[in-house]
Amino acid sequence: MDEFDGLKEECGLFGIWGHPEASELTYIAMHSLQHRGQQGAGIVSSSGDYLFGARGMGLLTEALSKEQLDSLKPFPHAIGHTRYASSGGSELSNVQPFLFKSHKGDLALAHNGNLVNAMNLRRALEDQGAIFQTTSDSEVLAHLLRRERGGGEESFEGRKKRIKKVLKQVKGAFAFMIMHQDSLTVALDDHGVRPLMLGKKDGSYCVASETCAFTAIGAEYIRDIEAGEMITITDEGIDFDHYTDTTSPHMCSMEYIYFARADSEFRRTSTYRIRKELGRSLAEEMQGIDADIVIGVPDSSLAAAHGFSEASGIKQEQGLLKNRYVGRTFITPGQEARERAVRMKLSPVRDIVEGRRVIVIDDSIVRGTTSRFIVKALKKAGAKEVHMGVSSPPLKNPCYYGIDVSTHAEIIASTKSPEEIRDEIGADSLTYLSVDKMHDVYHSFGSKGQCDACFTGNYPIDIEEAILPQEKDLKQKGV
Amino acid sequence: MDEFDGLKEECGLFGIWGHPEASELTYIAMHSLQHRGQQGAGIVSSSGDYLFGARGMGLLTEALSKEQLDSLKPFPHAIGHTRYASSGGSELSNVQPFLFKSHKGDLALAHNGNLVNAMNLRRALEDQGAIFQTTSDSEVLAHLLRRERGGGEESFEGRKKRIKKVLKQVKGAFAFMIMHQDSLTVALDDHGVRPLMLGKKDGSYCVASETCAFTAIGAEYIRDIEAGEMITITDEGIDFDHYTDTTSPHMCSMEYIYFARADSEFRRTSTYRIRKELGRSLAEEMQGIDADIVIGVPDSSLAAAHGFSEASGIKQEQGLLKNRYVGRTFITPGQEARERAVRMKLSPVRDIVEGRRVIVIDDSIVRGTTSRFIVKALKKAGAKEVHMGVSSPPLKNPCYYGIDVSTHAEIIASTKSPEEIRDEIGADSLTYLSVDKMHDVYHSFGSKGQCDACFTGNYPIDIEEAILPQEKDLKQKGV
Amino acid sequence: MDEFDGLKEECGLFGIWGHPEASELTYIAMHSLQHRGQQGAGIVSSSGDYLFGARGMGLLTEALSKEQLDSLKPFPHAIGHTRYASSGGSELSNVQPFLFKSHKGDLALAHNGNLVNAMNLRRALEDQGAIFQTTSDSEVLAHLLRRERGGGEESFEGRKKRIKKVLKQVKGAFAFMIMHQDSLTVALDDHGVRPLMLGKKDGSYCVASETCAFTAIGAEYIRDIEAGEMITITDEGIDFDHYTDTTSPHMCSMEYIYFARADSEFRRTSTYRIRKELGRSLAEEMQGIDADIVIGVPDSSLAAAHGFSEASGIKQEQGLLKNRYVGRTFITPGQEARERAVRMKLSPVRDIVEGRRVIVIDDSIVRGTTSRFIVKALKKAGAKEVHMGVSSPPLKNPCYYGIDVSTHAEIIASTKSPEEIRDEIGADSLTYLSVDKMHDVYHSFGSKGQCDACFTGNYPIDIEEAILPQEKDLKQKGV
Amino acid sequence: MDEFDGLKEECGLFGIWGHPEASELTYIAMHSLQHRGQQGAGIVSSSGDYLFGARGMGLLTEALSKEQLDSLKPFPHAIGHTRYASSGGSELSNVQPFLFKSHKGDLALAHNGNLVNAMNLRRALEDQGAIFQTTSDSEVLAHLLRRERGGGEESFEGRKKRIKKVLKQVKGAFAFMIMHQDSLTVALDDHGVRPLMLGKKDGSYCVASETCAFTAIGAEYIRDIEAGEMITITDEGIDFDHYTDTTSPHMCSMEYIYFARADSEFRRTSTYRIRKELGRSLAEEMQGIDADIVIGVPDSSLAAAHGFSEASGIKQEQGLLKNRYVGRTFITPGQEARERAVRMKLSPVRDIVEGRRVIVIDDSIVRGTTSRFIVKALKKAGAKEVHMGVSSPPLKNPCYYGIDVSTHAEIIASTKSPEEIRDEIGADSLTYLSVDKMHDVYHSFGSKGQCDACFTGNYPIDIEEAILPQEKDLKQKGV
Repeated sequence: MDEFDGLKEECGLFGIWGHPEASELTYIAMHSLQHRGQQGAGIVSSSGDYLFGARGMGLLTEALSKEQLDSLKPFPHAIGHTRYASSGGSELSNVQPFLFKSHKGDLALAHNGNLVNAMNLRRALEDQGAIFQTTSDSEVLAHLLRRERGGGEESFEGRKKRIKKVLKQVKGAFAFMIMHQDSLTVALDDHGVRPLMLGKKDGSYCVASETCAFTAIGAEYIRDIEAGEMITITDEGIDFDHYTDTTSPHMCSMEYIYFARADSEFRRTSTYRIRKELGRSLAEEMQGIDADIVIGVPDSSLAAAHGFSEASGIKQEQGLLKNRYVGRTFITPGQEARERAVRMKLSPVRDIVEGRRVIVIDDSIVRGTTSRFIVKALKKAGAKEVHMGVSSPPLKNPCYYGIDVSTHAEIIASTKSPEEIRDEIGADSLTYLSVDKMHDVYHSFGSKGQCDACFTGNYPIDIEEAILPQEKDLKQKGV
Repeated sequence: MDEFDGLKEECGLFGIWGHPEASELTYIAMHSLQHRGQQGAGIVSSSGDYLFGARGMGLLTEALSKEQLDSLKPFPHAIGHTRYASSGGSELSNVQPFLFKSHKGDLALAHNGNLVNAMNLRRALEDQGAIFQTTSDSEVLAHLLRRERGGGEESFEGRKKRIKKVLKQVKGAFAFMIMHQDSLTVALDDHGVRPLMLGKKDGSYCVASETCAFTAIGAEYIRDIEAGEMITITDEGIDFDHYTDTTSPHMCSMEYIYFARADSEFRRTSTYRIRKELGRSLAEEMQGIDADIVIGVPDSSLAAAHGFSEASGIKQEQGLLKNRYVGRTFITPGQEARERAVRMKLSPVRDIVEGRRVIVIDDSIVRGTTSRFIVKALKKAGAKEVHMGVSSPPLKNPCYYGIDVSTHAEIIASTKSPEEIRDEIGADSLTYLSVDKMHDVYHSFGSKGQCDACFTGNYPIDIEEAILPQEKDLKQKGV
Repeated sequence: MDEFDGLKEECGLFGIWGHPEASELTYIAMHSLQHRGQQGAGIVSSSGDYLFGARGMGLLTEALSKEQLDSLKPFPHAIGHTRYASSGGSELSNVQPFLFKSHKGDLALAHNGNLVNAMNLRRALEDQGAIFQTTSDSEVLAHLLRRERGGGEESFEGRKKRIKKVLKQVKGAFAFMIMHQDSLTVALDDHGVRPLMLGKKDGSYCVASETCAFTAIGAEYIRDIEAGEMITITDEGIDFDHYTDTTSPHMCSMEYIYFARADSEFRRTSTYRIRKELGRSLAEEMQGIDADIVIGVPDSSLAAAHGFSEASGIKQEQGLLKNRYVGRTFITPGQEARERAVRMKLSPVRDIVEGRRVIVIDDSIVRGTTSRFIVKALKKAGAKEVHMGVSSPPLKNPCYYGIDVSTHAEIIASTKSPEEIRDEIGADSLTYLSVDKMHDVYHSFGSKGQCDACFTGNYPIDIEEAILPQEKDLKQKGV
Repeated sequence: MDEFDGLKEECGLFGIWGHPEASELTYIAMHSLQHRGQQGAGIVSSSGDYLFGARGMGLLTEALSKEQLDSLKPFPHAIGHTRYASSGGSELSNVQPFLFKSHKGDLALAHNGNLVNAMNLRRALEDQGAIFQTTSDSEVLAHLLRRERGGGEESFEGRKKRIKKVLKQVKGAFAFMIMHQDSLTVALDDHGVRPLMLGKKDGSYCVASETCAFTAIGAEYIRDIEAGEMITITDEGIDFDHYTDTTSPHMCSMEYIYFARADSEFRRTSTYRIRKELGRSLAEEMQGIDADIVIGVPDSSLAAAHGFSEASGIKQEQGLLKNRYVGRTFITPGQEARERAVRMKLSPVRDIVEGRRVIVIDDSIVRGTTSRFIVKALKKAGAKEVHMGVSSPPLKNPCYYGIDVSTHAEIIASTKSPEEIRDEIGADSLTYLSVDKMHDVYHSFGSKGQCDACFTGNYPIDIEEAILPQEKDLKQKGV
């Protein structure tokens, strides 16, 4: 899948406690998580007494200046966040981590995921006089935390109790980092939809959305954080706990298929290996198709194509190349324009595909724009046949748990059958991986349960409250 | 006084209701109020249903882009704010108007002045769970408004009652503009410290910190808004009311002396005329001094020098010129550097001052840096004698009502006698206007009472709560 | 005259030889010459062996960064240039000083004025194979200098001979600074149209377009450089010479009337005094007009109004104020728009003008836009009568000697009589100073001859070669 | 090879004559040539009567604004240039195409390569009075063209004769585009060092450094332009000619090995296929090494690794991943810093390499920094053995023909033997492809002769005149 018409992950998280280079390591780690959010980035550091923040719009290297980073250098604790902002809400005030100052102590917050009952909680809080300054559902958590009372306010146990109470109120998919001046608390929702990893660097604990962040800073990967788990790191050490015992693991399938970097590991297995295996399984479903070469759509589908090639015995070739220079180009819209935009990103290698029967492996199809271009371009370059293989099931439903995939209307498989899609993209054949085979692969790598709602419509967390119209209405109002 | 070492007014306000060019007129009006705040500017417009905002750092022309302005054009109601940000708080999130969105309706807020009990109110609100995102005392009002209940929530009278109740809770100097989607409420504190004017443009009511804004947009100047007054403008018309009847008018003297533009009028008198009169009064106090010419420090003291000249019969000349090109220059700090900076702004006209006994009129002396330079420069240019006349009393005390004059330590007259100051600036004589003569002038132009705390230390509004240390501490914490 | 519809001076020059702070002093001096060019600025410094340059677009403070300035600090010799760029040629490559590197030695060049035979010289040079990279007539001089041979190439006398030979080839108005690594040569054309001053700072010679630059850096003003003079400064000292003996002094009248800063001196007289005197003379011509107050158009006409007031006995008041915050504003063009733009810059002081008969003094009228607005605004503010007095003769003709005044078509007095202009601007009367009276004033202050071509059409330097159509054609071609 | 410590190609060229979308196609084509120069870009268009240009610093998308592109849209002829600027010369004035305006007609020039006799030609021209404004050797050609006389000046044949005469004077590697208002002439040096391709789009001829530009705009690839060839395109058609008949084809080997995009073709063969074949040949040389997997360094060495895998039967895996988000990062220099920078770009996939004997294929080694990191990272990730295979011979010598590879000192193989390099990078073995095997591969794909000077030191074009010290000296002088 090409990001041109693909899905957008909402966020990447990293945090580290008690390291002399905390903010610099956070910066490097965030760089490795850049694929999880390119429209804003921020870091909040703790001096032990107060929190200090810096954030900006754009890629990490644009969002934070050297001066900003330098100002955070003295502090031994830091959390960072990279963010994908939906078009309506691309304002600096929405960039995380959020930082709230108060005479009662500072609070910072970073979130990956989506709260399905955020709107209702927000309305209730507003009715009590709360003022919201962002459109982010994450701000709701801050208000809940501030309003929570009791439990022995100032004690460690008191704070933990209050956080647990609040986490039980929010529903949805969330990996949260909650930073007070003297502690970092991370928590994963009871379905464990979004990934969160625990690591250690020079004796200091760190957390990250993906293990590639650990590789980037040279940290040790300890283990995956589990659904319902809540971990608190302080100068005294690490406290493992759960805010709930009623859990039902449903990790996002798309993390395996597309989002996570190929070198990131889940349960000690790289997504590269998982993707290869998905490709192997797809090869079984496409046994009947004769072809000379198999081509992966760069970069995310190369692994699946590799697995396909190994399983099928059909030679893999780099028949499609990706231009690594991107950025906003000023092409006249209109006739040919959209096609030109894709052509500037992907090119066939003529003398590889000419006269050949080609199988193209893509990890998923969202709108179909890229697939249509690829088939056309390969045929123009001389391919005799182009068979499309997709290493995941037909993507049919929107996600309410933190992935930006627009409306049903834009998802081609929500209204069209595989045969209709094949016809529209002009391929000689189109084969999807079945849902069962997909799950077989995940289980073979130790998965405790995967969310497949975008394929099946079986939403593990009730989405009734995530009534889109309401949210949409609010966005129209300029919130 | 030169802004180089002078006082800083905190803000300029403008609002207009029900005009097809509301945002454009607001933009023009703000341009004319630019002298009241150069470090940030914003506009919030109402469509009648929702509020929409735009704001940025710097001068108006930098702060708001054409795209931002265009986006506000369709809306018939607008308020604007120009802001001077104290060094610690120069962040976009502090730029006003503040805009708060809620399912209960939108709210925008702009403020000129300073609330002396803001810190205490903020602490109390935080104890109740409120989250603050700015360091501005103005945000406190928003929280109070949101929390206020009763009075028949949705009715016009209900809203008015709630606003009144809140205004009674805040203490200090304030000119507030409170915008809901369907109304604009403006209010002045019970001492009327900061100015607020009512005008009319093409049948639509408008308000502004100074009448020069009315001149800029071609609006009619109706009258000065009074202490304790609260005016609400809706599509149905204008509602005149008072949130309190216990008032004690104490308008800021410095507005007359220095801040307001010379063409701005208070009670139908331009500050130009008032300043001339202050200069005339000063002439009486300096009758004994023989001189050949009188020179005003450009631009703000030209009027006082003019009055002085008329009263004394001593010819006024433009013996000092101001370089109108300013901006950050890159001069090596250190020896001579500070003096160079002033020399780049003010130059004597040699052949005017050479061989002459000169009286220089300045409207006030804060640190004394500029005065010292002026005396030295005039003498170097050949002046035989340089007598300094100040058209206001010795400025000795900080302001807690919305003017940024740093600590006592930086105010030369807080620790030094006029004779010591004369010695330090090197003048042949130094004469201040007396407090009584100053008030005589104001009364002669219909003033109902002026604050003179910066001269006398008689603070009309209790400043005990405005305990600076507390605020300072918070700033250190990075709030 | 307001710069809004006024004339534009092309350039400001400053140079200093052999001072440890050469580049910094140049920067400060250029700041004081900013009124002579706001669209680009540059400095070239000499280490004694090589030349090094920095330049940029915009005001000085924008054009040169701290890094650029710092890079020039080590060098003891510097020249600087501020530039007004005509709309067609606003490209960085046109910003001066020009710097040419060669294995034969470096060369830098800065120019104020305009060469009337530049086009012909350029064509001739191009026919010989020369390549031009700018549209500036100044580049012609560089080519001529490079091509000149003989005179004992490497000797001081040889170089002087070559420069003289080249200066004799160029016709027009010029103040040139020519910098080699080991010398600074300055020259003024044989009519001395543009000003050039000699000064001394801490024992080092310096030159500047105006003496205000000397004031800004604390330098001593030695004398005015004369028509036809050529001065060479080296480490050995200063060499006074003339490149021609056939001179005919015709200094630009507009320097006195409008361009030069009021504190700048010519033959030891400030333009402030000259402008006052022009105002006094105008008063004689307007004796028949009864009025209550006289108002100068700020800032440039305040001196003339002052002189008028002294001579006529009519009281001067600041009845018009100028908003000192300028910059590009985003006002919708169309109806009212142009008027709005002026209204944002100039405001009447109502309670000064109301009910009064007013004389307004302006130093000149170019298009008439500003005058029309002033009359209208004063009348709207209540003035009973508005009489316009212009302290110079009717400006009728374009300048070919370095001042940007567009075509005949845009100069109101080129096609309209004073009575027609009066009618168009709506004044009750309009009086210009006569050409003779103007010259009388100049002669009384020691002028040796002034160019009055813009008033009389008597061009002292033949303008036949400055055939505008040719130049225009070239501009169309994108040169 | 990673660009982090690699070679830099100097330029990319594209030109098209007589197409209604000339500038837009040029823009798209340049985007596909971005890998040939990232520090500046420009386009010059011809209206048929005049030339118009736009250029800027940075990547294409930063260098040219939408406004600039729009201004060039009306014109049917265009040439574009992407440029890599060596550190000393990163100034806008060095960005090509150069545009020279003259009353004799306009001239634009774009160049890929390096003229070895540029310094001598420049000195000679300067002695004749020529003024240079850039440090580029390309400007020399412009001067020569302007000075050339005779041949029937204004005729088509006359111009061709003059261009031929000039091309014979310059020595070195060059692909030139010379644009007059009515013609586009392209020429390749007599050794054909740099590539230049001829194509056709919608009936209009176009030229490009690589065929990937044709793919990007949907143009047909006609043929490779030959050494000594000179082609002139006008509205009348295309004229094929040679400026010299003494040719000796020596195309740059590095274009095949590293520079050209994998989908670009030479003599109808993609570099992807050539690189695979280089990898196959390398496999023969490494037959003795037992390994479990072979890994290509992404992206440029994946093809060679693929060939290696096919020939050796050792399975290829994506054991190294590249972070596609790049840009200037703010990492503290010093201990660990350089390593961190590489670690942010390349990551091993742990569960692929763990416990395995790995062969890593890189296309070349310049400084060795990246190789050292790769070996270390793979071993840290658990690789049992790491054998390094390089699909080209040891790179030992600098290039004088347009590739930026710094001094001998920085090229590891210029002073160290393969065994010493192996030791320094920490690999278990290190194998280079032999020069002969490399040439065998090229010949098998129809090469007429390749330059191998960087491997062998046999410079096909005499480099005596390209005396680096001279040039260096000039740079020190600030040229």
